[in-house]
Amino acid sequence: MPRLVMKFGGTSVADLERIKNAAQKVKQEVENGFEVIVIVSAMSGKTNEMVGWVQETSPLYDAREYDAIVSSGENVTAGLMALTLQEMDIPARSWQGWQVPLKTTSAHGAARIEEIPTDNLDAKFGEGMKVAVVAGFQGIAVDGRITTLGRGGSDTTAVAFAAAFSAARCDIYTDVDGIYTTDPRVVPNAAKLKKISYEEMLELASLGAKVLQTRSVELAMRFKVPLRVLSSFEADISTNAGTLVCDEEEIMENNVVNGVAFVRDEAKMTLVSVADRPGIAAAIFGPLADAGINVDMIVQNISEEGRTDMTFSCPVDQVLRAEKALNGAKESGEINYHGLVSDKDVAKVSVVGIGMRSHVGVAKQMFDVLAREGVNIKVITTSEIKISVLVDRKYMELAVRALYDEFELEHAT
Amino acid sequence: MPRLVMKFGGTSVADLERIKNAAQKVKQEVENGFEVIVIVSAMSGKTNEMVGWVQETSPLYDAREYDAIVSSGENVTAGLMALTLQEMDIPARSWQGWQVPLKTTSAHGAARIEEIPTDNLDAKFGEGMKVAVVAGFQGIAVDGRITTLGRGGSDTTAVAFAAAFSAARCDIYTDVDGIYTTDPRVVPNAAKLKKISYEEMLELASLGAKVLQTRSVELAMRFKVPLRVLSSFEADISTNAGTLVCDEEEIMENNVVNGVAFVRDEAKMTLVSVADRPGIAAAIFGPLADAGINVDMIVQNISEEGRTDMTFSCPVDQVLRAEKALNGAKESGEINYHGLVSDKDVAKVSVVGIGMRSHVGVAKQMFDVLAREGVNIKVITTSEIKISVLVDRKYMELAVRALYDEFELEHAT
Repeated sequence: MPRLVMKFGGTSVADLERIKNAAQKVKQEVENGFEVIVIVSAMSGKTNEMVGWVQETSPLYDAREYDAIVSSGENVTAGLMALTLQEMDIPARSWQGWQVPLKTTSAHGAARIEEIPTDNLDAKFGEGMKVAVVAGFQGIAVDGRITTLGRGGSDTTAVAFAAAFSAARCDIYTDVDGIYTTDPRVVPNAAKLKKISYEEMLELASLGAKVLQTRSVELAMRFKVPLRVLSSFEADISTNAGTLVCDEEEIMENNVVNGVAFVRDEAKMTLVSVADRPGIAAAIFGPLADAGINVDMIVQNISEEGRTDMTFSCPVDQVLRAEKALNGAKESGEINYHGLVSDKDVAKVSVVGIGMRSHVGVAKQMFDVLAREGVNIKVITTSEIKISVLVDRKYMELAVRALYDEFELEHAT
Repeated sequence: MPRLVMKFGGTSVADLERIKNAAQKVKQEVENGFEVIVIVSAMSGKTNEMVGWVQETSPLYDAREYDAIVSSGENVTAGLMALTLQEMDIPARSWQGWQVPLKTTSAHGAARIEEIPTDNLDAKFGEGMKVAVVAGFQGIAVDGRITTLGRGGSDTTAVAFAAAFSAARCDIYTDVDGIYTTDPRVVPNAAKLKKISYEEMLELASLGAKVLQTRSVELAMRFKVPLRVLSSFEADISTNAGTLVCDEEEIMENNVVNGVAFVRDEAKMTLVSVADRPGIAAAIFGPLADAGINVDMIVQNISEEGRTDMTFSCPVDQVLRAEKALNGAKESGEINYHGLVSDKDVAKVSVVGIGMRSHVGVAKQMFDVLAREGVNIKVITTSEIKISVLVDRKYMELAVRALYDEFELEHAT
């Protein structure tokens, strides 16, 4: 019998009514002939409540106890979902991470999945169970203690189950109805994509389209798991609904640009006149990594007379920490620079598309549009399928809308 | 190193402040030289919240899912208690039932403890752990699913751990500071007992002194575990505090009567003129048991001309169901009686004391007191260490106070 994985996030199981609504969708898929593995998050708010207790009790908490505590939220939802399905006459039971067992590393709070043996669930499917409801976000380490997978862990759990059980698809139910070509709050007529490649999704996710966690998309790409994002609040769950994230070969005709993404609160920092020598990048970005700075774009200008300028971007609220780390490194003699310039009023705008690979001139087209609108470009970085620029924050919406029109994204599907 | 079990109920761990307060007491015992096993309940209110969700989701719920859900409350407290102790520099870790593992029968929702292997905890104590915080009320069945022990399960867990680990004592921390000779709300100067025998405690517990669950006292008696009841809200936890429930041989001089107990909302039901034949009691009380009636006292009067009267007591709110069950049994021909008389305005008053065994005349003394006060006795039952009577409810307080004075219970200790 074909298998399907369905994952419901916290807002989709926020109360008994919503759990029932989610269970209706599971029922439909059972009636469609699937054996279903349902992955659930904690009811929204519950995890935060428990994290609050942990932090208040012990600011530098033992991560093993943290995991033992917060994993209980998913256990509650799993049990309630199983009961709800049973009330609908569907043979279902709940599984906690250690019961599957979902084996992970011992990195408590940010464990990685090592193995999902299929025999326990397979045996129950063989006995007539139609739905296994699995508590997401959690597993068990080799010493028998509970682990959690960290942020986005439930999406990752879902994809890992889909891979282990060779599921036909992994459906991620959430509070949006798919992946859009840009943020509908900025461009009201933003179009929903029917399909998008894993690679594009990765670029969009890491650029701020927060629908799917990067880790889960990476995993889906590695194991070629078709991953669908759809809304748990809409009735249609047919294959027409939502957005399918899949291999690019399954997408007939790629748009040149499939999305415009942005990050509003960026800062640009420039180290002026750095001694240009082998190892200088490591000497600069080592202290920043140690200080927990999320460095995003990095640009190194042409070297003149043995000195160069090094520019990078990071979230605005990390600028002070970054300055402290760099000044410290300067004082200790690890690095040498003449000046440190911080610009806290920038935003990042990116266009993403697999089609760029075979279409020249996308960058030129992008720069032309921005010039026409009078938007000054401060930094440029590019990858194979993405072009990102830093612009003054006040021009961000203007830039996004102009690019959206230029690349005809309202027609993208 | 000597071992101690300390159990904290829901009100004693209701919030982070109270968990800290409880942890202070654990710390004191560690400093007294004990290795401690702490058994915790869920934070008060949490279990009820989850039970509410289960019942709303599925009125005839699958008890296996119920157990998986509600056991999470104790897991949260166990983790928070371990973190709190760690903050006090005490090596502590949490254990969920399945991690110990506490092995139980598969009677979900009312499982019985079968075995507590000591090797896992012993190994950690050997490595320097000073406190094992165990989630109470839960275990694991042979098929790997989570079980709960049912009402009073946390007390029972505590006593079972004390037995398995040969603890010097099992301390039950609760919101009262010990066992009283009667309810202080009825007799304001009711005295607190320093010691009481297991047998007396069993009679008092089942008679409505709700401090300790009957099951845990039975278990303590079987394994000779000294069981102490004391308040988590008072500073003194020395051996002077609370009430010790122990073997009667450890109590130097027994009082004749050690307590006056009462149950306010009783009903008396009498089947008038029942055919007196072998098996008649089973024929009457079978249907009542099937209907879930908690029959308490049973009195059968002398038989005359092959017919007898059968009287029993039960909670007032079960009278209608009892009448229905008995009428049904009459209609189907299982039993035969002339009339069914229900009196919903009675209360039960009992005196309890190990000393009764060696002192004659306690019953006469009790009846004299009640006669002197003008309290009519409607039903009498006796056991070796207890005498119970049903009286009109309006005389209950009067009877309790008169008996309290008569047996000089304000001097009992």
